[in-house]
Amino acid sequence: MDLGDEKIEESAGYASKLERGYSVTPWQVTGVVDYNKIVKDFGTRLITPEIIEKLQKFSGIIHPLLSRGFFFSHRDLDLVLDAYGNGENFYLYTGRGPSGHVHMGHLMPWFFTKFLQDTFGSRLLFQITDDEKFLYSQHLSLQEVEKYAYDNILDVIAMGFDPKLTRIIIDTKNIQTLYPLYLEIAKRLTFSTAKAVFGYKPSSNIGMIGFPAIQAAPCFLPSLIEKKPTRVLIPAAIDQDPYWRITRDIAEKMGYYKPAQVHSKFVPSLELNGKMSSSRPTGAIFTTDDPETIESKISGAYTGGQPSVGLQRMLGGDPDACPVFWYLSHFFDDGKDSFERSLKCRTGNLLCGECKSDLTTQTKLFMSEFTRRRDQAKNQVDSFLYEENPFD
Amino acid sequence: MDLGDEKIEESAGYASKLERGYSVTPWQVTGVVDYNKIVKDFGTRLITPEIIEKLQKFSGIIHPLLSRGFFFSHRDLDLVLDAYGNGENFYLYTGRGPSGHVHMGHLMPWFFTKFLQDTFGSRLLFQITDDEKFLYSQHLSLQEVEKYAYDNILDVIAMGFDPKLTRIIIDTKNIQTLYPLYLEIAKRLTFSTAKAVFGYKPSSNIGMIGFPAIQAAPCFLPSLIEKKPTRVLIPAAIDQDPYWRITRDIAEKMGYYKPAQVHSKFVPSLELNGKMSSSRPTGAIFTTDDPETIESKISGAYTGGQPSVGLQRMLGGDPDACPVFWYLSHFFDDGKDSFERSLKCRTGNLLCGECKSDLTTQTKLFMSEFTRRRDQAKNQVDSFLYEENPFD
Repeated sequence: MDLGDEKIEESAGYASKLERGYSVTPWQVTGVVDYNKIVKDFGTRLITPEIIEKLQKFSGIIHPLLSRGFFFSHRDLDLVLDAYGNGENFYLYTGRGPSGHVHMGHLMPWFFTKFLQDTFGSRLLFQITDDEKFLYSQHLSLQEVEKYAYDNILDVIAMGFDPKLTRIIIDTKNIQTLYPLYLEIAKRLTFSTAKAVFGYKPSSNIGMIGFPAIQAAPCFLPSLIEKKPTRVLIPAAIDQDPYWRITRDIAEKMGYYKPAQVHSKFVPSLELNGKMSSSRPTGAIFTTDDPETIESKISGAYTGGQPSVGLQRMLGGDPDACPVFWYLSHFFDDGKDSFERSLKCRTGNLLCGECKSDLTTQTKLFMSEFTRRRDQAKNQVDSFLYEENPFD
Repeated sequence: MDLGDEKIEESAGYASKLERGYSVTPWQVTGVVDYNKIVKDFGTRLITPEIIEKLQKFSGIIHPLLSRGFFFSHRDLDLVLDAYGNGENFYLYTGRGPSGHVHMGHLMPWFFTKFLQDTFGSRLLFQITDDEKFLYSQHLSLQEVEKYAYDNILDVIAMGFDPKLTRIIIDTKNIQTLYPLYLEIAKRLTFSTAKAVFGYKPSSNIGMIGFPAIQAAPCFLPSLIEKKPTRVLIPAAIDQDPYWRITRDIAEKMGYYKPAQVHSKFVPSLELNGKMSSSRPTGAIFTTDDPETIESKISGAYTGGQPSVGLQRMLGGDPDACPVFWYLSHFFDDGKDSFERSLKCRTGNLLCGECKSDLTTQTKLFMSEFTRRRDQAKNQVDSFLYEENPFD
């Protein structure tokens, strides 16, 4: 079914969705998120089996983050795949706001981005929005944000993106490149549109109001690098969609393709409710956590299990409500293992302690390897940083 | 008398002054301007004989643009002069929005700026706000604005500013330097303040809203260059005051001096009413006009004279309402000549044709020399452009 998202003005309001039971903006997710509702409200499209099949033609496999429904929504992913089929490659673009250390929730869209890069040999622009985090934070100085920017870049490099195909843009360092695009974009975005989409208040600072045009700029940078209109696909959590939506509204007027997106769900916190967030550090496993901290955080995690071993054996648990199960199934278990784990849980044949122990072991293993790569990354930073003629 | 401008919150509204009979914003001056009213409404101070005397101590002379009341208002000029007396030099900062060619109205604050530089040996930052002109113009492309930027730089250099003491900042070229300051400033300016001061509308683009923080940035750049809080004095027409006023509100919180200003009046058009403006080219003499064009524009100028020679001989003219007299008195005549000219005009002993002929001759002479210097300037551009460690 054609949802007709191209036929309506794309930049309808995102900001006042609280009456619908949830609110999703680039800075805050509140309420109980209904992803089907988001797709309807945002005017995006669900990823259909047909699209997964199209993608599989090129990748050979169905990526677990697709089969598990973590990446669930898109705009123009089908167009990007069709164009690729016709010999037209595309750029990937994603990013990170460096307001703290990177946690496992941040890594998930990066895994998928790496999968796309490996599949299509696509060039990737990775934007570090240090300016955004400075403008939006009450307490962070520019120096502190810069410190996090370099810290986070180590994580990006540790992900294993192809150094020949990947360039990291740090907004404050690459503003000379971004600024002409910023001006062209900002000139086309009225305050009333930006306010409707981002919900600015009288107390919002004027830097916040201009910022969306900085985040939109890398959508069009590939066309300048390649000296021809170039498609861009953005893998990111759906809370970033407002940025791309206003960008899509002006792209064609500027002579560019509308940027395509593939949207992920949010990554759950290890604690009851909410998404994994730096603002709730006990519910998040950071790439900088030592093994003891990992063990302690998982040990204290909320689960879908019963209050006692007896009840668990009798009634079984609920893996669908369990962040421990979620991490195991999205990060570590393969499809078959995951199905068996859920079955054993539901029938009372698996205790929460066992799942926590599995997750702890796997996470410590993963993080031990990731830390090694992160240390190596310190020598690779320069080769990843964006500079003029970035891929020459 | 202490007008108490430091005691009130400085950023009261500028935008809705039309009910007072005039409106002065950085983009438009409408209505009949009453300069005493502006001083009261903006909360600036009139330049007093005491201040002129203080300045004369250092310069030896009273500059004609002061004695004729063209520079009439200030903020903290006295503080800057006192500090200089105590061995503390200051930076000068002024600028130009490159939306067209430079005309004689633009040159006047530059003359005064050069006088201040010559007197105090001050370093001068000259900002070319090409980003502003792009964001505010319906029809100008970035390329066109850039063309005007380089064209206007030739005029700046032709003014004779000291190449050792003068650096030209082009916003789009020097954004790497300006951006960290932009962020620090923008974070401290709320939308409600900016809206009250600049009168933004829902249709304003989001680049316009952020721009004041770009124009404010060079107020603090000298402190970064000198690695200590450094005073800045801004000679500019009073319509630019809103920018400095919001900057003054946040300067001390950021650890800098409040930027000081010396404000000029507007330069009249050669036509009836209004200020000399690029949007009314027949009323403005551009530095790129050829001698025939100059002659034709002055010949068609409005004057304070009578409709016929007979009436002029009988009733005399009104030099106070005459743009031809204004240009002669502000640009070319010395005080005594000017007084005699006004007397002869008022008593019917001087015809408009004679004044027009004098102005034409003088303007052609001036422009001939200016054009020569402007041509030479083409070889000096690089040495004037701002770069890292600009005065090393």
